[in-house]
Amino acid sequence: MNAAVYGVGTTEFGKQPLIGAPMLVQIAVQEAIDDAGIDPSTIEAIYLGTVFGEAGVAVRSLQQLGLTSVPVITVENACASGTTAYHEAVMAVEYGRYETVLAVGVETMTSQFTGAIIPEEADSEGRQGMALPSVYAMSATRYQHKFGLTNEQLAMVSVKNHRHGMFNPRAQHRSEVTIEQVLESRMIADPLTIMQCCSISDAAAAAVVGKPRGVARDIKVLSTVLRSGGLWDSRSERVWGFDLIADTARQSFEQAGIAVTDANLIEVHDAFTIGEIVTLEAMGLAPEGEGGRLAEEGVTMLGGSHPVNPSGGLLSRGHPLGATGLAQIAEIAWQLRGNAGGRQVDGARIGVVETMGGGTAGVDGNACVITVLSN
Amino acid sequence: MNAAVYGVGTTEFGKQPLIGAPMLVQIAVQEAIDDAGIDPSTIEAIYLGTVFGEAGVAVRSLQQLGLTSVPVITVENACASGTTAYHEAVMAVEYGRYETVLAVGVETMTSQFTGAIIPEEADSEGRQGMALPSVYAMSATRYQHKFGLTNEQLAMVSVKNHRHGMFNPRAQHRSEVTIEQVLESRMIADPLTIMQCCSISDAAAAAVVGKPRGVARDIKVLSTVLRSGGLWDSRSERVWGFDLIADTARQSFEQAGIAVTDANLIEVHDAFTIGEIVTLEAMGLAPEGEGGRLAEEGVTMLGGSHPVNPSGGLLSRGHPLGATGLAQIAEIAWQLRGNAGGRQVDGARIGVVETMGGGTAGVDGNACVITVLSN
Repeated sequence: MNAAVYGVGTTEFGKQPLIGAPMLVQIAVQEAIDDAGIDPSTIEAIYLGTVFGEAGVAVRSLQQLGLTSVPVITVENACASGTTAYHEAVMAVEYGRYETVLAVGVETMTSQFTGAIIPEEADSEGRQGMALPSVYAMSATRYQHKFGLTNEQLAMVSVKNHRHGMFNPRAQHRSEVTIEQVLESRMIADPLTIMQCCSISDAAAAAVVGKPRGVARDIKVLSTVLRSGGLWDSRSERVWGFDLIADTARQSFEQAGIAVTDANLIEVHDAFTIGEIVTLEAMGLAPEGEGGRLAEEGVTMLGGSHPVNPSGGLLSRGHPLGATGLAQIAEIAWQLRGNAGGRQVDGARIGVVETMGGGTAGVDGNACVITVLSN
Repeated sequence: MNAAVYGVGTTEFGKQPLIGAPMLVQIAVQEAIDDAGIDPSTIEAIYLGTVFGEAGVAVRSLQQLGLTSVPVITVENACASGTTAYHEAVMAVEYGRYETVLAVGVETMTSQFTGAIIPEEADSEGRQGMALPSVYAMSATRYQHKFGLTNEQLAMVSVKNHRHGMFNPRAQHRSEVTIEQVLESRMIADPLTIMQCCSISDAAAAAVVGKPRGVARDIKVLSTVLRSGGLWDSRSERVWGFDLIADTARQSFEQAGIAVTDANLIEVHDAFTIGEIVTLEAMGLAPEGEGGRLAEEGVTMLGGSHPVNPSGGLLSRGHPLGATGLAQIAEIAWQLRGNAGGRQVDGARIGVVETMGGGTAGVDGNACVITVLSN
């Protein structure tokens, strides 16, 4: 593709309800602009991803940075809102619509939700109490029944990602946890305990993308694909979300000209432990039914052949919906430049980001974005 | 430009809280697809505009039409959300990213708000009770002070648009009103009485856009420009919003190669009577300070030289935020094809849509979109 990531920036992730979206956006965007080394006046358009941000949050946030007059478009695609902002920015550059575009994501959840996201009463799922933990828990139960995945294997994903997050100074949770602690933590939706569910969070993240400048520290975009979920038959053999991720991955890897095994590191949407396992199978890193062995055997651990979620993932970094996708992009950028500190994947050349967004009755996920980056 | 509107569709506009967004979207989209005469499977991407629609409403609505798997992106830009969806769809076609794209807008307001939109407590304006009627009322007061606009001239905009709306079977308000009735109706924010404020509403509207097919009934897109508001100094000589609309109009008319007087009809964002007056001046249809004479002298009335809001505008059709912009596009398409019934502008060749979105302290509006269409 004819696009590159010039620079990235994020806030810290965590419960910081008093800061507010405008200030979070300013911190992340300022860092991304500085990192990109651009004059902010060269930004030709801005895409901002948020799910629960109030109308007008984009302009209200950006005016303080003097980023006005250019087209500002807020996009929403459930948990994939940040990656959708990135995708639209990259595609606008790819097709020559703009030369330099800012993508930013923000969410302030702890001032809006005290615990989990409240199910929408207008949805049939919401009326049945089917918040997303329940949807993922049902996938996990079915998967366990079908393939014999153990609770310990599930928990191991959380152990791994918390271990990675210890080295991410901006992560929400930075303590090591054991399999026992994960399994003994509070049950949310059987078999998913609270340490297998990502936390709500307040944060922003941003990336400046543009035409390749031939600058060594720029990150090349090899591909980016966004798809929405097809109709999902609950009687199908596949667990929820698998097909959407598999279709998106196939298309994105083909576009990038890589196999999944070429990826030196992968950031995936581990909103729940089962999510990481199903995602990695759908992406082809393990045969169907065998994804539970990846964390257990260390394949996806830092030091393994294909570290997954070296940032700590959603389970450790936290999951401020609109910010997540751009935080994943930021992690890959830092890693591909060799600036990831204690969690650095040595010699990383190719990184992949996958974000899965939402879902509703009968649909295999609202959106999935998969992008391949290289240095 | 290398883009055309193939077909349009809308629901009826009004208080219909029991119908729900998915059904409204289906009605409008089905009509647009039928009108476009396309096979729905040729739609390559979908942009959906909404302000208060819950996360996931796009996919939930579209799955019933079998419109899944393709990229679905929800966009928000305050009152210009529907026109933003249209703009992104047109630009994606213009730059060769897609050949056929669906733009749709929806809002279900009467189930969410009992009267006016509740000001956001997180905003400084909201905490001061500065809902949008207050912002427009302050503009009106300042304008009256500066240029001597009379209350009767303000009211005349409402009289005109209600008269037009009588001929629009899908409008929310279809009764003629007199200047006296407008002025004697309940005061909302001095000098704006309730008949000078658009109504909250439930509706959806849609347009299929794509590469020009050379089909006679397709509507050519001559230009589309989206801008966000620059910093606004409240001490400036100009009333709020003027500069944003003027800048957008200049750019859009230049791109289309027209003068505003070439427009046979114009749909503008008359959320409040003062809005239509300021907008028409900013677009150049009247010198600054003289816009109040346009409705009074019949220039912008059906039968006049430049009918404005032949659909009834927001004041008569109602203003379901995300749906409004695409309803404006639909009106222009119907008019340019000669299918606008009792409100037909004879021999219409060129139509213009202007939508103004929101605003916040210190910014001259969140977004403005102006597009020029021809048959």
